[in-house]
Amino acid sequence: MASETRDRIVEAADLLFYQHGFEATSFADIAATVGISRGNFYHHFKSKDDILDGVINRRLASTKQMLDRWEISGSDPAERIRSFIHILIVNGEKIRKYGCPVGTLSSELAKLNHAAKSDAAALFTLFRSWLCRQFEQLGFGDRSDELAMHILGRSQGVATLANAFDDDRFLHHEVELMCTWLDDQIADLARKNNPDRE
Amino acid sequence: MASETRDRIVEAADLLFYQHGFEATSFADIAATVGISRGNFYHHFKSKDDILDGVINRRLASTKQMLDRWEISGSDPAERIRSFIHILIVNGEKIRKYGCPVGTLSSELAKLNHAAKSDAAALFTLFRSWLCRQFEQLGFGDRSDELAMHILGRSQGVATLANAFDDDRFLHHEVELMCTWLDDQIADLARKNNPDRE
Repeated sequence: MASETRDRIVEAADLLFYQHGFEATSFADIAATVGISRGNFYHHFKSKDDILDGVINRRLASTKQMLDRWEISGSDPAERIRSFIHILIVNGEKIRKYGCPVGTLSSELAKLNHAAKSDAAALFTLFRSWLCRQFEQLGFGDRSDELAMHILGRSQGVATLANAFDDDRFLHHEVELMCTWLDDQIADLARKNNPDRE
Repeated sequence: MASETRDRIVEAADLLFYQHGFEATSFADIAATVGISRGNFYHHFKSKDDILDGVINRRLASTKQMLDRWEISGSDPAERIRSFIHILIVNGEKIRKYGCPVGTLSSELAKLNHAAKSDAAALFTLFRSWLCRQFEQLGFGDRSDELAMHILGRSQGVATLANAFDDDRFLHHEVELMCTWLDDQIADLARKNNPDRE
């Protein structure tokens, strides 16, 4: 029971931090959402930083699960990278309203010079390493991390502007461009590896 | 004298909002930085939202000035767009520490569902319209706004990841890619306009 309440607190905080920001969310906001007394609340978490740790761990776990699902469902690495690109559309409505959960938390914690900012960056690292592995499997070798960072950056920029302008058409158009970019990279590599076929 | 104090308050708030975030900066923080009494402070600003208006207007004015400078100093539209791309390097140290001032404020105000969020988006609109005009002058016609949004998005993504990973090498590499992308767009257009030269 105790751990169930704990989970409910972390789940509520996760959503509030995403929708309103870490700094703008108070202990009282979270307690009110979960519907528990402050006494019960303090039994589980002594500080908002403790809750933040719980939220980041929860996000790390759910991101790992999502990446594992893409790994299984994607027939090849290019298909898996397209799964990553398409979260911009899958989560489009939320992104237009609240931005990317990873990028906005990371930016906020950097400004707060918060002790957990490197933990938040670990969320980006999960995506980065996973993407890097896909590019390695496609044969990009040493360039894989650079390409992973490029596509991660592109998706961050799209999220920021789709949020600022609440623009769904822009988001869809940029997703198309990212997929075209991926196809071009793969075609260029194939040409490089088989120059005779030119 | 009164307006001088007002300017000093807005200047201090601008920096604090950028470095620590709007929500994380208190009236007291700003008053302490400027070194004035809370009474004097309240004489100039009744609320943090009033200060935010002042900060956004200050940023709009300084952005306009910067764009005007680029307009004059850049010998052609491509050169001017390169000036835009290179602010990532010029402001690289600050960006790695605090992210992009426009993107992070816009994201924060969207989460707060703040009345001033559209004013903050107006900062993006300044860059967008200016970039759009440069692409128009280069002859991109109807596609100009799309290209402006693309390069604006790319620069936002670079700022977010350079901040999350405190990565200067990544930032420089992506600036190079953005300049190459620009050159490719211009070369493609020239080929399209002069197919005989293929």
